[in-house]
Amino acid sequence: MEKERLKKRLKKQMDFCLEIDKEKRIGRQTYRSDAIQKENDAEHAWHMAVMTLLLSEYANDKIDVLRTISMLLIHDLVEIYAGDTYAYDEEAKKTQRQREVNAAEKLFSMLPKDQETFMRNLWDEFEEGATAESKFAHTMDNIQPTMLNAATKGKGWVEKNAQLSKILQRNQHTGEGSEVLWNYSLQNFIMPNVENGKITDDRTE
Amino acid sequence: MEKERLKKRLKKQMDFCLEIDKEKRIGRQTYRSDAIQKENDAEHAWHMAVMTLLLSEYANDKIDVLRTISMLLIHDLVEIYAGDTYAYDEEAKKTQRQREVNAAEKLFSMLPKDQETFMRNLWDEFEEGATAESKFAHTMDNIQPTMLNAATKGKGWVEKNAQLSKILQRNQHTGEGSEVLWNYSLQNFIMPNVENGKITDDRTE
Repeated sequence: MEKERLKKRLKKQMDFCLEIDKEKRIGRQTYRSDAIQKENDAEHAWHMAVMTLLLSEYANDKIDVLRTISMLLIHDLVEIYAGDTYAYDEEAKKTQRQREVNAAEKLFSMLPKDQETFMRNLWDEFEEGATAESKFAHTMDNIQPTMLNAATKGKGWVEKNAQLSKILQRNQHTGEGSEVLWNYSLQNFIMPNVENGKITDDRTE
Repeated sequence: MEKERLKKRLKKQMDFCLEIDKEKRIGRQTYRSDAIQKENDAEHAWHMAVMTLLLSEYANDKIDVLRTISMLLIHDLVEIYAGDTYAYDEEAKKTQRQREVNAAEKLFSMLPKDQETFMRNLWDEFEEGATAESKFAHTMDNIQPTMLNAATKGKGWVEKNAQLSKILQRNQHTGEGSEVLWNYSLQNFIMPNVENGKITDDRTE
C-alpha cells in the first residue's frame, strides 16, 4: 500500500515536471541582449534567479534567498494556461487576475496535496507582494527587463512608444524590494534613454 | 571612498548579470516537449532548478536545496565562451575541460573577488561531483533531458542513433544522487524506448 502511494506521488511530480516544460514556449515582450530574439518566461525566470543569487545583499530587508529564488522560478508558471499579459496592455490586464487564478488551480492540482499547497503559497506570496522576499522578487521582475531594454539601445521602448510616466508608474514599488537597485536602474537604464529620446518624457512640468 | 567602492562593486555585478544573458543563445541537443524547438542552456537550468525544488526528497542523502539549485543555475555559464559540448561527441569532449576552465576564469573574474570565488567554488563543486548536492545536480542534469527525449517519442534518440550501452555509460553515476529517480528514469523513459526500437539495444548477450 505504502509503496503504491509513493509510486503515485512520484508519478504526479514527474508529470508536473514535464508539463511545465511548456513555459519555454511562453514569449515575453523583452528582447534578449542580442536585440534579435525576445526572451521567454523560462529564460526570464532563470535570469532573475541568478541575479538574486548575486544581488540579494541589496535587499532593503534581509531576505531568505531560497524562498525568493523559488518564487521567481515558479511565479510565471500560470502563464502556461493564462498566457503572458504585457505590462502595458490595459485591456488584457482587466481579466489577468481571474485567468491566472484559474491557471494556478489547474496546474498546481497536478501535484501531491502538500506540494500543491507549497506552490500555491509561493505564488500567492509573490502576487501579494507583502513580504521582504516577494518585494525583492518584484524588484528583480522589473529591473531585469529594464536592464535588457537599455542593453538593446531601447529597441523595445521605441517599438512600444514607451512613456516615462507609465514606466515610473509601473515601477512605483520597485524600490520597496531594493532602494539601491531601483536607483541603479533609474540612473543607468531609464534616464539615459529618456535623455536620448528612446523613452518619451511626458511628465508635466 | 567607501561609496566609490560600493559603486564599483555594484557595477561589476550588474555587468555580469547582463553578460550572462548570452546563455540564452547556447543551444542544446534536447528537444523541448513540443518536439519542434530544441532547448537552450538557460531553459535547461531553469527546468532543473524547479525540478530540484519538487524532487529533493528523493536525494540519497539529505541535500541543501539552495546550494543544489544555485549549482544548477550557474553550472553551464562557462558555455557562453566554451560552447555546448554534446554528451556523445568524443572529439569535442577531449578539449572540453580546458575550454571550460578558461571560460570560468574569464567569466567569473568580471565579479567582485568574493563572488568570483563563490561562483568558481559552486562550479568546481558541480564538476567534481563529490558532494551530495553535486551528485543530485548531476542526477537532474541527466534525468531532465531523458524525460524530454521520452516525451518527444524518442525523436532525439532516433536522430542520433542512440545506443543503450552509451546511455547506460553516460548514466553510470546518475543513481548516486538519487536511486529512486534513476530507477524511474530507467523504467519509464529509457527502457520503453529500447523496447520500441527508438534506442538500439546493443548490449552483448
